[in-house]
Amino acid sequence: MSQQQLDKLLKIFERQPPLGTVSIAEERRNLDEGGARFKVPADVTLTPVDVDGIRGEWLAAPGARPDRAVLYLHGGGYAIGSITSHRYLMQNVSRHSGARTLGIEYRLAPEHPFPAAVDDATKAYRWLLAQGFAPGRIAIAGDSAGGGLTLATLVNLRDLGVPLPAGGVLISPWADLTGDAGAVTSRAASDPMVKPDGLFRLAGEYLKGTDVKHPLASPVFADLTGLPPLLIHVGGREILYDDAITVANNARKVGVKADLVDEPALFHVWHAFAPMLDEGQRAVEQIGGWLQGRFQA
Amino acid sequence: MSQQQLDKLLKIFERQPPLGTVSIAEERRNLDEGGARFKVPADVTLTPVDVDGIRGEWLAAPGARPDRAVLYLHGGGYAIGSITSHRYLMQNVSRHSGARTLGIEYRLAPEHPFPAAVDDATKAYRWLLAQGFAPGRIAIAGDSAGGGLTLATLVNLRDLGVPLPAGGVLISPWADLTGDAGAVTSRAASDPMVKPDGLFRLAGEYLKGTDVKHPLASPVFADLTGLPPLLIHVGGREILYDDAITVANNARKVGVKADLVDEPALFHVWHAFAPMLDEGQRAVEQIGGWLQGRFQA
Repeated sequence: MSQQQLDKLLKIFERQPPLGTVSIAEERRNLDEGGARFKVPADVTLTPVDVDGIRGEWLAAPGARPDRAVLYLHGGGYAIGSITSHRYLMQNVSRHSGARTLGIEYRLAPEHPFPAAVDDATKAYRWLLAQGFAPGRIAIAGDSAGGGLTLATLVNLRDLGVPLPAGGVLISPWADLTGDAGAVTSRAASDPMVKPDGLFRLAGEYLKGTDVKHPLASPVFADLTGLPPLLIHVGGREILYDDAITVANNARKVGVKADLVDEPALFHVWHAFAPMLDEGQRAVEQIGGWLQGRFQA
Repeated sequence: MSQQQLDKLLKIFERQPPLGTVSIAEERRNLDEGGARFKVPADVTLTPVDVDGIRGEWLAAPGARPDRAVLYLHGGGYAIGSITSHRYLMQNVSRHSGARTLGIEYRLAPEHPFPAAVDDATKAYRWLLAQGFAPGRIAIAGDSAGGGLTLATLVNLRDLGVPLPAGGVLISPWADLTGDAGAVTSRAASDPMVKPDGLFRLAGEYLKGTDVKHPLASPVFADLTGLPPLLIHVGGREILYDDAITVANNARKVGVKADLVDEPALFHVWHAFAPMLDEGQRAVEQIGGWLQGRFQA
């Protein structure tokens, strides 16, 4: 990573108010505006779609196969984030995976606490099956809370007996809402983006009394038996570092293939900064190639 | 990278006789046997093909599009290496790029000195065009000498006025045959695979009197104007480190997009060890996703 690229990003992070210091409405607007600074290339086709009552959007880069789909679950602590905030990242996944990406506006806390997000993601996957996609030609991917939600959704689908997708991609997943993971304190000083106070306040808003160790809320406590292969990305400068490592270990213990990409110098969801950070672009490309190798022919 | 994986590989490298200490025939056999230890997965289709007089092989992983091709130029100092030695790597590129890979037995030194390899690679690319592949749906890729040859072939095609492919992938390219690059001495101790003596002896066999600075032999001396986007991978523990950096800089200076992946802990063509080295597998996946984003829809 060039020091120049990193310095520029650190300045941007400094300008952002720490999560939890402004209202939820302002945080939503900030994240949407931040994400929208990266313009979607003109060659991408965006198609709004009603996903069984959930607002969705197809993003198709040139060459994306119509029979392959990545259900993308955006991050934002289960309380913020949207198709708008994650549009650049979602089209980038489409471009490098050769699949269309489906973004969805799953319901957010505090208006809609757990398990609304899991229910919506589950519904969206079943909608893809109903549209005729083969399970082997679908993947689920998400970042941060969306990464935890990806894992929770896979567990939920397995429990429901629904045919599982070809794989799951967890980018800097938030999979442990307890705040007890060691990295939450040991890496707090080195994490330039996510501060424990704000994040775990959001956990309370999402849980609204549900046990924080519920396996669909904190899937580090879930039995992962039978899940499809997982690709997990994490940066060394993340308070969520342990979440990724624990998920990878838990998966491997029960025979689930888990490919872990552990980038010591990087921070939470660096992929979102691909247009100004080479490592972000390379990471999305690796996800794309991984997916290409997982989809059923 | 797990220390375990690395230790195992270093032991394998130690068992190999240093390049240039056994006969060319033995070196060829060693590399073929080494590469063949990684079995090609049963789902890959291998099809021998006559490429305008050059022995070739198509490698198609499931889902590889019939209208997309990666012409792959194996490494081995222009004197060793073959389809056999590089079959695993080539099928892996097919698997993650969604394209078929075409391997070719370009002529080797000392029997066939410069410019035989460049002529054969050029001929193979023109053969792909004659088969009906759109230039925008072809890429050229190669490792080590094959990476230098990839760049030389692109320069040659440009000079000949042939429509250029969508991109070029240079894995640990050997692009400076002079031996004068700083890394040749400064990184010799840290390079566990390639020793300067043996490598630059092969340069002499290949050149057989041609000026070592000929731009098609040492493309660090070539004008790269007008070339398609390049992806360049290099490890920090390589005596060829400077070759990659110089190519990236030279490309950018003349407006050619050059994406550089610089992995400090890694060694020459770590991609070849994907079955036993996670970073090798991830690197091939990143190449695949990069290619997916470059191919014309």
